Amino acid sequence: MNALGVVSRRLCAGVAGRVSGWSAHSLRPFAGITVSQGTRDYNPKQMAIREKVFNTIIGCFKRHGAETIDTPVFELKETLTGKYGEDSKLIYDLKDQGGELLSLRYDLTVPFARYLAMNKISNIKRYHIAKVYRRDNPAMTRGRYREFYQCDFDIAGQYDPMIPDAECLKIVHEILSELELGDFRIKVNDRRILDGMFAVCGVPDDKFRTICSTVDKLDKMSWEDVRSEMVKEKGLSEEAADQIGQYVSMQGGKDLAERLLQDAKMSQSKQACAGLTDMKLLFSYLELFQVTDKVVFDLSLARGLDYYTGVIYEAILTQNGPAPEAGEKGEEGVSVGSVAGGGRYDGLVGMFDPKGRKVPCVGVSIGIERVFSILEQKASAEKVRTTETQVMVASAQKNLLEERLKLTAELWNAGIKAEVMYKKNPKLLSQLQHCEDSGIPLVAILGEQELKDGVVKLRDVHSREEADVLRAELVEEIKKRIADV
Amino acid sequence: MNALGVVSRRLCAGVAGRVSGWSAHSLRPFAGITVSQGTRDYNPKQMAIREKVFNTIIGCFKRHGAETIDTPVFELKETLTGKYGEDSKLIYDLKDQGGELLSLRYDLTVPFARYLAMNKISNIKRYHIAKVYRRDNPAMTRGRYREFYQCDFDIAGQYDPMIPDAECLKIVHEILSELELGDFRIKVNDRRILDGMFAVCGVPDDKFRTICSTVDKLDKMSWEDVRSEMVKEKGLSEEAADQIGQYVSMQGGKDLAERLLQDAKMSQSKQACAGLTDMKLLFSYLELFQVTDKVVFDLSLARGLDYYTGVIYEAILTQNGPAPEAGEKGEEGVSVGSVAGGGRYDGLVGMFDPKGRKVPCVGVSIGIERVFSILEQKASAEKVRTTETQVMVASAQKNLLEERLKLTAELWNAGIKAEVMYKKNPKLLSQLQHCEDSGIPLVAILGEQELKDGVVKLRDVHSREEADVLRAELVEEIKKRIADV
Repeated sequence: MNALGVVSRRLCAGVAGRVSGWSAHSLRPFAGITVSQGTRDYNPKQMAIREKVFNTIIGCFKRHGAETIDTPVFELKETLTGKYGEDSKLIYDLKDQGGELLSLRYDLTVPFARYLAMNKISNIKRYHIAKVYRRDNPAMTRGRYREFYQCDFDIAGQYDPMIPDAECLKIVHEILSELELGDFRIKVNDRRILDGMFAVCGVPDDKFRTICSTVDKLDKMSWEDVRSEMVKEKGLSEEAADQIGQYVSMQGGKDLAERLLQDAKMSQSKQACAGLTDMKLLFSYLELFQVTDKVVFDLSLARGLDYYTGVIYEAILTQNGPAPEAGEKGEEGVSVGSVAGGGRYDGLVGMFDPKGRKVPCVGVSIGIERVFSILEQKASAEKVRTTETQVMVASAQKNLLEERLKLTAELWNAGIKAEVMYKKNPKLLSQLQHCEDSGIPLVAILGEQELKDGVVKLRDVHSREEADVLRAELVEEIKKRIADV
Repeated sequence: MNALGVVSRRLCAGVAGRVSGWSAHSLRPFAGITVSQGTRDYNPKQMAIREKVFNTIIGCFKRHGAETIDTPVFELKETLTGKYGEDSKLIYDLKDQGGELLSLRYDLTVPFARYLAMNKISNIKRYHIAKVYRRDNPAMTRGRYREFYQCDFDIAGQYDPMIPDAECLKIVHEILSELELGDFRIKVNDRRILDGMFAVCGVPDDKFRTICSTVDKLDKMSWEDVRSEMVKEKGLSEEAADQIGQYVSMQGGKDLAERLLQDAKMSQSKQACAGLTDMKLLFSYLELFQVTDKVVFDLSLARGLDYYTGVIYEAILTQNGPAPEAGEKGEEGVSVGSVAGGGRYDGLVGMFDPKGRKVPCVGVSIGIERVFSILEQKASAEKVRTTETQVMVASAQKNLLEERLKLTAELWNAGIKAEVMYKKNPKLLSQLQHCEDSGIPLVAILGEQELKDGVVKLRDVHSREEADVLRAELVEEIKKRIADV
């Protein structure tokens, strides 16, 4: 069965677009101290952005009752073999060092399916955020990293139709709204509708996959070019191509599904009818979830993936994201690009089960690297705090290191995030400068007089106002000030 | 220079002890669906524990003003080459697939040093929590994973002596206290004191390292055995061995450092005096931090590591952790084992700098895998929630799926963590059972009557009390109930 034989990647999440910071090549001068070509370090500012994005996404997954799992970064080579079609050449193998043959994971979906089969789990709602690895063609590495995050949410289990599928779309809607990346659209289609359409348009059975791949290019090629590829390269009849052309230009909602169910040709395909009936049902649930404003039933969405068996979807930003890079393959060509994608894959778990027992799954992958790069770009001019320090313990006079350390420990013990300079006699100015630079909002200043009076001078870095606070009340006062910010 | 030539691992963090769940071997029956030998999946319960531990640790790191960075899982092989001494054989290499020669990171310290040198960073306080990889000898794999977390906190920069060092110890104290692992002790020593001691006891210069390794075994071998190894295997004179024996039995605090500064022999070594003077200073800071209750200056602590240049420390649990496994190497032999370790390494960054520019560093690594395994064992009898769902939207009657979905979306949109069953007509009992099983505290029940009355029946799963709540007030009521729990 074709749909089970080859698994392609769900989302091309290796980030494209410009990324702040240095490239692997620019580091080359210092031999021996480079990161490996095609990977990158994350500096504290990038990490701060990453943490914020993860918090939003994980918050959404948890709001929907998801658990999380983790799997090893490498799998037995045999687990990955035969799952990714021609992309298999991008898999990183480990050296045979006298043990098992191992490969770095290429996505999180295959390890998830392996996990379910191995542990005989027949239902779970889980998320998994982790890095995956792809030895992308060196000619394509510009901006596309070989190590990148995937951020997957999947619902496994035998349930009534379209309910979990609708929840996945609701999740995409929630996350993209919360991340404030600008306007977006979620295209939806169904593999059964595509296959039915190919059948009624007269595409021979053995050409379904290859024609599907060509249709998948409609987001970056004109219909004329797509038609020409179908006819000239793939040998499809002009008639069939033109019939496909009529269908793939259709976009709509529930109404379109209803109309196509009445369509003289489409209604001849049992598969198409099953897909269209489910599409109607899906839209009725999406109405209840109030997300139909962003969702479009789009017959041109193909996603070129082999493991999907039902609903498929892809979210794209419709506003100015990062400009596409010349020569970038993938969705970057025309639109600002896909930021989430997924669908139903009911056959994958069965590939790992000794008895072929199937576990229906539907899921979504957030294109987190693209989100990072958009937000990094947005933040490039802004100051981003990389620590959460609330107060700096400082002194204006000399010989107060011990008093500073004592007060700092008091604050730490009270759960206050506090810093102190590792110098015996730092200048007050340099202590204040550090607060300005790193966004620390408060300074607790100690001096001989303050110690005598049993107070601490609490300074607001922004307003530069200072007030004496009783030492015994300092913790409460800091908490109050922080809460007010 | 010996201290720079070879870098050993900072902490043997591959977990020992029993770990709940299955071993790689027990999975073997299902060919093709195993995890790679020596690694493990984390199930949702393990992940929930892991998340809690990370939150505690990250909370502490942030309280101390740390930023975080991330580095790729693989480095250029040359970056790791010559850093780990004979442990280099445990490094996982990637297959040469026509690109650069790459290896999986063995620890986080070498990538950190590479990062500092590459980016010319001369001061930073950072934490890094990530997985590292060690192809441990198959004969030793029992319970010791080949993929495991490290959890590092380091302070890089030229500062006044012992202030950052004291903060690292304060951090260990805070984390071990907060994790409630039972009583613990932090042993402290200084490489300069050890080297000075060896010199004044008549150990030839070229035997410092090897004698140091033998001393390092004192936590799992008797003095007699250690002495015998020094004399018989390493050719040390009996006299020198006995003099070492006198010193390494010493434990104390600031007083011990003061006494040794007066010691006729020790005071002859400039190095020892420098170390002892700093040890005094360290203890004075530790007093200000109020952590001297757990810290012991212990002359037998050697840590056998080559990259340390000053203070070294190691925290051990003194109460019943997981029982040691027979044949386990490392600290497991006698004590319940090390849960944190670290020290000062002032030469490592310079190894990566083209001009050899040094950046002094001090840091600590929390033995997080051991912490996981202790907490997993503790939790094995308990129920651990793997989701955070606050309310289940249920119905007692049929044909209310749409109403359930609508209410669920309302709750999601209000930020409430809510679940709904993916069934058209689930039984009320099975909905309630799911709440019991997964620890969901509240159920919002919809029925024809409730819909008519504009209310929702809110049920407390634990007390089984039910109350009608106005639909418009439901979100507030749920928030109130959750806050009360």
